[in-house]
Amino acid sequence: MSGSSFGKLFKITTWGESHGKGVGVVIDGCPAGLVLNEADIQKFLNRRKPGQNEYTTLRNEDDNVEILSGVFEGRTTGTPISLIVYNKDHHSTDYGNIANCYRPGHADFTYDEKYGFRDYRGGGRSSGRETIGRVAAGAIASKLLNELGIKLISYVNSIGDLSINYENFSETEIFNNPLYMPDAECANDAEKYLKEIIKGSDSVGSSVECIISGVPAGIGEPVFDKLDALLAQAIMSIGAVKAVEIGDGISVVNKKGSENNDNFYMNKKKVEKLSNHAGGILGGISDGSDIIIKASFKPTPSIFKEQQTITKDMQDTMLAIKGRHDPIIGPRAVVVVESMCAITILDLMLQNMGSKLSNLKKIYN
Amino acid sequence: MSGSSFGKLFKITTWGESHGKGVGVVIDGCPAGLVLNEADIQKFLNRRKPGQNEYTTLRNEDDNVEILSGVFEGRTTGTPISLIVYNKDHHSTDYGNIANCYRPGHADFTYDEKYGFRDYRGGGRSSGRETIGRVAAGAIASKLLNELGIKLISYVNSIGDLSINYENFSETEIFNNPLYMPDAECANDAEKYLKEIIKGSDSVGSSVECIISGVPAGIGEPVFDKLDALLAQAIMSIGAVKAVEIGDGISVVNKKGSENNDNFYMNKKKVEKLSNHAGGILGGISDGSDIIIKASFKPTPSIFKEQQTITKDMQDTMLAIKGRHDPIIGPRAVVVVESMCAITILDLMLQNMGSKLSNLKKIYN
Amino acid sequence: MSGSSFGKLFKITTWGESHGKGVGVVIDGCPAGLVLNEADIQKFLNRRKPGQNEYTTLRNEDDNVEILSGVFEGRTTGTPISLIVYNKDHHSTDYGNIANCYRPGHADFTYDEKYGFRDYRGGGRSSGRETIGRVAAGAIASKLLNELGIKLISYVNSIGDLSINYENFSETEIFNNPLYMPDAECANDAEKYLKEIIKGSDSVGSSVECIISGVPAGIGEPVFDKLDALLAQAIMSIGAVKAVEIGDGISVVNKKGSENNDNFYMNKKKVEKLSNHAGGILGGISDGSDIIIKASFKPTPSIFKEQQTITKDMQDTMLAIKGRHDPIIGPRAVVVVESMCAITILDLMLQNMGSKLSNLKKIYN
Amino acid sequence: MSGSSFGKLFKITTWGESHGKGVGVVIDGCPAGLVLNEADIQKFLNRRKPGQNEYTTLRNEDDNVEILSGVFEGRTTGTPISLIVYNKDHHSTDYGNIANCYRPGHADFTYDEKYGFRDYRGGGRSSGRETIGRVAAGAIASKLLNELGIKLISYVNSIGDLSINYENFSETEIFNNPLYMPDAECANDAEKYLKEIIKGSDSVGSSVECIISGVPAGIGEPVFDKLDALLAQAIMSIGAVKAVEIGDGISVVNKKGSENNDNFYMNKKKVEKLSNHAGGILGGISDGSDIIIKASFKPTPSIFKEQQTITKDMQDTMLAIKGRHDPIIGPRAVVVVESMCAITILDLMLQNMGSKLSNLKKIYN
Repeated sequence: MSGSSFGKLFKITTWGESHGKGVGVVIDGCPAGLVLNEADIQKFLNRRKPGQNEYTTLRNEDDNVEILSGVFEGRTTGTPISLIVYNKDHHSTDYGNIANCYRPGHADFTYDEKYGFRDYRGGGRSSGRETIGRVAAGAIASKLLNELGIKLISYVNSIGDLSINYENFSETEIFNNPLYMPDAECANDAEKYLKEIIKGSDSVGSSVECIISGVPAGIGEPVFDKLDALLAQAIMSIGAVKAVEIGDGISVVNKKGSENNDNFYMNKKKVEKLSNHAGGILGGISDGSDIIIKASFKPTPSIFKEQQTITKDMQDTMLAIKGRHDPIIGPRAVVVVESMCAITILDLMLQNMGSKLSNLKKIYN
Repeated sequence: MSGSSFGKLFKITTWGESHGKGVGVVIDGCPAGLVLNEADIQKFLNRRKPGQNEYTTLRNEDDNVEILSGVFEGRTTGTPISLIVYNKDHHSTDYGNIANCYRPGHADFTYDEKYGFRDYRGGGRSSGRETIGRVAAGAIASKLLNELGIKLISYVNSIGDLSINYENFSETEIFNNPLYMPDAECANDAEKYLKEIIKGSDSVGSSVECIISGVPAGIGEPVFDKLDALLAQAIMSIGAVKAVEIGDGISVVNKKGSENNDNFYMNKKKVEKLSNHAGGILGGISDGSDIIIKASFKPTPSIFKEQQTITKDMQDTMLAIKGRHDPIIGPRAVVVVESMCAITILDLMLQNMGSKLSNLKKIYN
Repeated sequence: MSGSSFGKLFKITTWGESHGKGVGVVIDGCPAGLVLNEADIQKFLNRRKPGQNEYTTLRNEDDNVEILSGVFEGRTTGTPISLIVYNKDHHSTDYGNIANCYRPGHADFTYDEKYGFRDYRGGGRSSGRETIGRVAAGAIASKLLNELGIKLISYVNSIGDLSINYENFSETEIFNNPLYMPDAECANDAEKYLKEIIKGSDSVGSSVECIISGVPAGIGEPVFDKLDALLAQAIMSIGAVKAVEIGDGISVVNKKGSENNDNFYMNKKKVEKLSNHAGGILGGISDGSDIIIKASFKPTPSIFKEQQTITKDMQDTMLAIKGRHDPIIGPRAVVVVESMCAITILDLMLQNMGSKLSNLKKIYN
Repeated sequence: MSGSSFGKLFKITTWGESHGKGVGVVIDGCPAGLVLNEADIQKFLNRRKPGQNEYTTLRNEDDNVEILSGVFEGRTTGTPISLIVYNKDHHSTDYGNIANCYRPGHADFTYDEKYGFRDYRGGGRSSGRETIGRVAAGAIASKLLNELGIKLISYVNSIGDLSINYENFSETEIFNNPLYMPDAECANDAEKYLKEIIKGSDSVGSSVECIISGVPAGIGEPVFDKLDALLAQAIMSIGAVKAVEIGDGISVVNKKGSENNDNFYMNKKKVEKLSNHAGGILGGISDGSDIIIKASFKPTPSIFKEQQTITKDMQDTMLAIKGRHDPIIGPRAVVVVESMCAITILDLMLQNMGSKLSNLKKIYN
């Protein structure tokens, strides 16, 4: 019940199905006074929209966002911001065998088990289109964080066995290739590889990384709403994510304490660390260095190869999925990961404002 | 602010510092009628308590739990269950240089940044003792889940470069070795390895896995309170965890869709899957097969080797940590991981009860 | 921050300003399988819409609701139900002196103090139109409660000094007069009285009562989410409400215990009470008898008489409000009170499903 | 489920039964740096403790509070503050017929209906002792509010038909008479009246008022977490409260708009109102003037007169309650009302800190 809201003070509530009238989000608790217009949000939505290139589905959805409330004379008013994106092809009616088959790797079976039936059109609520609301809200959170000197960079760092070489890392390159990779050479190899995957009527996994700089030390609410804990929930809640790592992630298992600890030192009156294995978080609280988070995405479950499965009448069957599907999830998910990070951090920064009595006096005296 | 509660209907609130008067938890929303006594809880606490063997700190804390409310005539009443464990050595006074030094890998610095000052005695709130409240609550959640036919198994599956061989997997073996590993041979090698680590005044990382069987299909609340999303928050909120994986976890990045999808089939009128790469969760909802979750723990940050760091007066310094510290976190954390999984799943099972109108009619008509 | 959501499992989030593009609500956590269409909701909205008669503003707003998500093939799917009502006259531009004056009895001043500025068009977020989202959600909650044998009746019981005579109480009469009063004679007198009020360019207060029958005993979550406590929040959150009473309300102050206690007795194997001073709630939990709640509404603050006030530049001034305004709030608020009661009770019935272990076994075994 | 927590950022969780081992509260989210010791809390608890005089039960409970966590070196650390008060007479065993009878006006019947059984000792969780946790938390909230220049005054203003005369109002008098009335003459008459009530083996109702001064304008979160809405929940959640009024309360029903509106004017560059019928709240947000709230308490349900009721085996019976019970609830409830108001206002002041982008810049830039 009621799992469609995220955040405590900066709270988003998403709604909508893939082939219903539209999808949207209500952002409640956005501080008043932020300059905001639809272009600020559209810019983010365009990074996830389909039809950008041959590696994303050919559906040409415009996904134009409309601000319905919460903004007056160009600034946020502090009241709920309601955003809507109308679905283009919600009149299509041919969903073939998806209506009565359970697609492997999809949520068809689990939704039927939970709710008794489901909106089977294009995945309904479990469709990737659900992330439109997240991205629209993330655009607002990001813009507000920028006002506070915080910057987020996100990109694909692995596709199948191909991973970027951090020595080739180029922030500008991220937007120069269709795979949103910061390493031109790796992107080039990955494109070739993806062409083969597509030829094979298959799909492949990928990983996305987000680096957030400028977050002040002290953000995160021990012990259950730690910064890393809420980032983990935020990222794992994105469809197809199967792992979340902070800083060095799973590689810490093979490390010794003397290798993994980050030593503090003073750099011209500023506290810094000699390394950042921790990914900017200690005890669930930001330490002032870059926050580093990584998400592992499974391969797109919709593949064209024929697969064994069952019907909703519990009969064994073979299924061949038709239609248009991305061979990989990562590239379009980059902005979704970035959005969820921005929303989580902004919400925790708002929660942290009252951590010290001295802060209350700054605001109220 | 107020990050010490977890859960929506089965809600736990933990409190207490390492060297304060005690630590505890309030469990609110536990269904009435569960047979419960202190021994049920103590059994779980004993799995995390120190001094069990040479790989855990030699402090001999009894950690005896006391039920203060919510249980009457041997059964839970539905009112808040308050549990307390008094601290033994909270009168010790020598914390040496910890009081004015920031230990690398610890939360000393971030707590001071957030709150302006901190209880420096033994890590205060950021101490591992905080998990006592989680485990006490987990014991209750687990007992209730057992009543519903749900079973949890947890163990250490990697220490440094040593990982268990699943062909040697033995559930009973988990409790036969001090490292809580299900593979006797691997446990034996790991013990030798740990002796070297201790000799080197160092520590090492580890990973813990939890397998939950018997969870009915349909548990999890899309889109932000998905089963995997809340498990990720629950596990990442445990101190020292740097990664959370569901099912095949990060290895999905290197898989093709045709390899990663789990095919459905009918096994004597029962829906089953030919594989379980998904770890029992599709679209954030349980699919009826085993739920598999893995946590990666960093090496214990407290090591005896001298380390570079700064004082709270922002001066560079060298620090040599004294006292008694585990060389590895995993073994004592096994029951913490299991407890957080049990709490998360029970809470979501309670939330799911109203997913269908037909369920309301079962209860109210 | 984020105060626009209400409910824990059946959770509503409203949005929208009086003269923005529209107003709406997202209902998250509605059980799947409820037969629902727009007419079910429109029926409720028509009870609050303006222009119904001479005692409600002459603006002719159709307030047609549109279901954007969460309903498929005529039934709720368990996913968020997004409802929207577009504003008709949001292009009007003349708000005269309201833009830079603080209207007495309105929220103009407090919104500016809180947020730094406000959407001054027709009251913006603090307008009565905000209740459209509540009523739309209430229509759904009421329909679901009806499926469980629960019925809500609401009406105006006082206008100024005129109160209904319970001996004349007629449920059908409620919909026979423009004031939604269950006493034809009192309604007739009240109409005459209101004509005078209007002549005097003034407004008057009123009270609304809601009686809910068929609620099973056991609903309400001690100690802060008691049934009466959440009803009090729900009703007091409606604009212009200044008092909430349960059962005999403030008159209990003058009662002796022997007069105020309701005695239990057995009526043909059924537990009943000889009286219902408690209004169906004991210890914050429903006792199975009728739940009775009363709300006191202040007079409409918008009056045509000239009033003393200040400008937003902090200058004393005189203000004469123009436009179209109801001389009384009660009649159109009847359905708002009923809606908030329905939402509150349904949410608590969902929360109560897990109160006993035996209930979990009914659903999961 | 889980209704024992109140507040979003300053969050309290109470636990404990009347005759269990003890009662307590966990306060999570208290800003760090507040000077606090047990005496600060005891002072508040002593205002509600029994045995103060002939109008309160003769049980002599000391109700000594102990701070278990969250305070270090005399200041709050920002971590959960756990407070406990051990029950003295929890070993008594004779609860006579209460165990198998449903006392009229009590929650015995509803608890059994909800949970299947109950802790019948002295009312268990529904006992007045539950308020100890509220008062202990309220003492902390009040002390913090005082640091911000906010002051709360609470008192009994009616007992049966006797009400204070505001012309005799004396703040100091409140603590000069056993009934906590600010009018010596009325208190004197009330004492005489109560003696008669006691002689008649009966009890009587009362009302309590709380006035909060110094709250800045802008506090309260529209539309469901309005200041008046949350105060209503907070106060109605106190046992025996049947009505909550803000400002002029129910009397607004009989008022005209021209009488009820409070006119703004400038008083030496300061915004003030010519009257305060609104009780300091407009549109659910504080307007800077005194916040006025009133609670109506029903007569103590425990009376010594024989009453008709039923047994838990559903048999009609007659019940004569024994033991020691207050003939009136108001006087001891004064500090409970004050505590709930303090907790509610502090929590909303914390939530309001992020209402404007400019506030975030004050804290983070």
